[in-house]
Amino acid sequence: MPAVDRLCLIGVGLIGGSLALALKQAGEVGSVIGVGRGAANLEEALRIGIIDEASHDPASAVEGADMVVLAVPVGATGRVCEQIRDHLDAEAVLTDVGSVKGDVVAQVSAAFGGVPANFVPGHPIAGTEKSGASAAFPTLYHDRRVLLTPLPETRPEALARVRRVWEIAGAEVETMDVAHHDAVLAATSHLPHMLAFGLVDSLARREDSGEIFRYAAGGFRDFTRIASSDPVMWRDICLHNRQALLDAMARFEMEMAELRQAIENGDADTLAEIFSRAKAARDDFAR
Amino acid sequence: MPAVDRLCLIGVGLIGGSLALALKQAGEVGSVIGVGRGAANLEEALRIGIIDEASHDPASAVEGADMVVLAVPVGATGRVCEQIRDHLDAEAVLTDVGSVKGDVVAQVSAAFGGVPANFVPGHPIAGTEKSGASAAFPTLYHDRRVLLTPLPETRPEALARVRRVWEIAGAEVETMDVAHHDAVLAATSHLPHMLAFGLVDSLARREDSGEIFRYAAGGFRDFTRIASSDPVMWRDICLHNRQALLDAMARFEMEMAELRQAIENGDADTLAEIFSRAKAARDDFAR
Repeated sequence: MPAVDRLCLIGVGLIGGSLALALKQAGEVGSVIGVGRGAANLEEALRIGIIDEASHDPASAVEGADMVVLAVPVGATGRVCEQIRDHLDAEAVLTDVGSVKGDVVAQVSAAFGGVPANFVPGHPIAGTEKSGASAAFPTLYHDRRVLLTPLPETRPEALARVRRVWEIAGAEVETMDVAHHDAVLAATSHLPHMLAFGLVDSLARREDSGEIFRYAAGGFRDFTRIASSDPVMWRDICLHNRQALLDAMARFEMEMAELRQAIENGDADTLAEIFSRAKAARDDFAR
Repeated sequence: MPAVDRLCLIGVGLIGGSLALALKQAGEVGSVIGVGRGAANLEEALRIGIIDEASHDPASAVEGADMVVLAVPVGATGRVCEQIRDHLDAEAVLTDVGSVKGDVVAQVSAAFGGVPANFVPGHPIAGTEKSGASAAFPTLYHDRRVLLTPLPETRPEALARVRRVWEIAGAEVETMDVAHHDAVLAATSHLPHMLAFGLVDSLARREDSGEIFRYAAGGFRDFTRIASSDPVMWRDICLHNRQALLDAMARFEMEMAELRQAIENGDADTLAEIFSRAKAARDDFAR
């Protein structure tokens, strides 16, 4: 018996699409129905073989599915849950892939009138700067971490099923507290995205932007790769992990104030100290 | 006749070493003498074949050289020039590879009592996060830009020789005004390095830094690659391109204040606008 008999994928992009492809390649899913609003993207998903059926209606699509994966921008979570609430099978496991967990849990709880026992909040720490079904590939999750943030209400059987699905996709699964997840990801992912988007936008708004980009090199290319990420996804992350992100930005601004002061003062020792500590930490991370 | 009869390379690291290797591979240099302070690095450079002779003394090393390349951290420029001033051959061309041009020109002029007619300020926009002779490779400059910032005093023949050397190494050479160079590079290179160093350092200083780095992913890896760059080189760039860098940082801070305000206010439209404009610019740049 496959890990999932009928998978309902709400949102057929890079993240959800890659999971479906991995399960298909492993022979661990019976059939996949994909839900989306854009007809072209769904047609592409059918063509590639990510999904077997396409639908624009979440309510009817979840009927008969034993696992439902929400893979939409986090701001759409509540709306989708209200649509599917009265149509989910009693035993169906519901999970999501959002980069924010506290606000997603709040949206799901509000829609269902409490935390559903079969809901397992999840977040695969993987991706590329590309988006849409055409960007999906089955090995995206190989050796990547997936964080699950089960709640007191979460049934252990539901957690075990979601864990198994991600392990089939090649991921290393860990569990974490919701608030802790949001603080850690704000620091390591959401803040860097703000810096990359902010840098590129500030250069794009200059009168001499054409020339500015002309003389940018390889370091700039790597540094700004994440600024090519999906604007709607990142708008939603900002709106729905607001406080943790603002805290991470405030901490970073304190660091930059210290660095700016050292540059203003020509303080060679402090500059060397900051750069050396950063290099040591980055070199450690890369190993 | 090769482009350079005898090359004196002062500072034998990634940048200077790669240039010497490219000239050797092209058969366009007679011999190379390398000057450095660290014995181990010079021995490595001899072993790899970057240089044919090694010296700790810039003064004697420049004697008989028809081209001298300064490839030291920009803060060391003045000191080295004072050492070589009275030993340079009259026809020898002097150039440098520093990421800052205004301050380098000032240091050279102070040491020589005016801008030497055979001095050609230069800056190859290339590199990796690695440093030292062992990081050098002959194709580093293939299809990369090299900016030369000749001065009114610069002899056209000297400019032509330096241009030819970089073209042999595979680079596309352009000329630019000194102050303009420093403003453009502050925005596209020096500022991103500050952000990457600052981000990694601010995370490294957290009590939970071990865990923080544990959950960082591919986007973080790319974004922070440049934080593995040489701390001494970057300390010197900060000290010697101080005003242009502070200007670039101030401009970036205005952008981040706008972004932070939008997050605080839950202003979805402004967030989407900033991220969309940045994505469009980054996608354009990548093409």
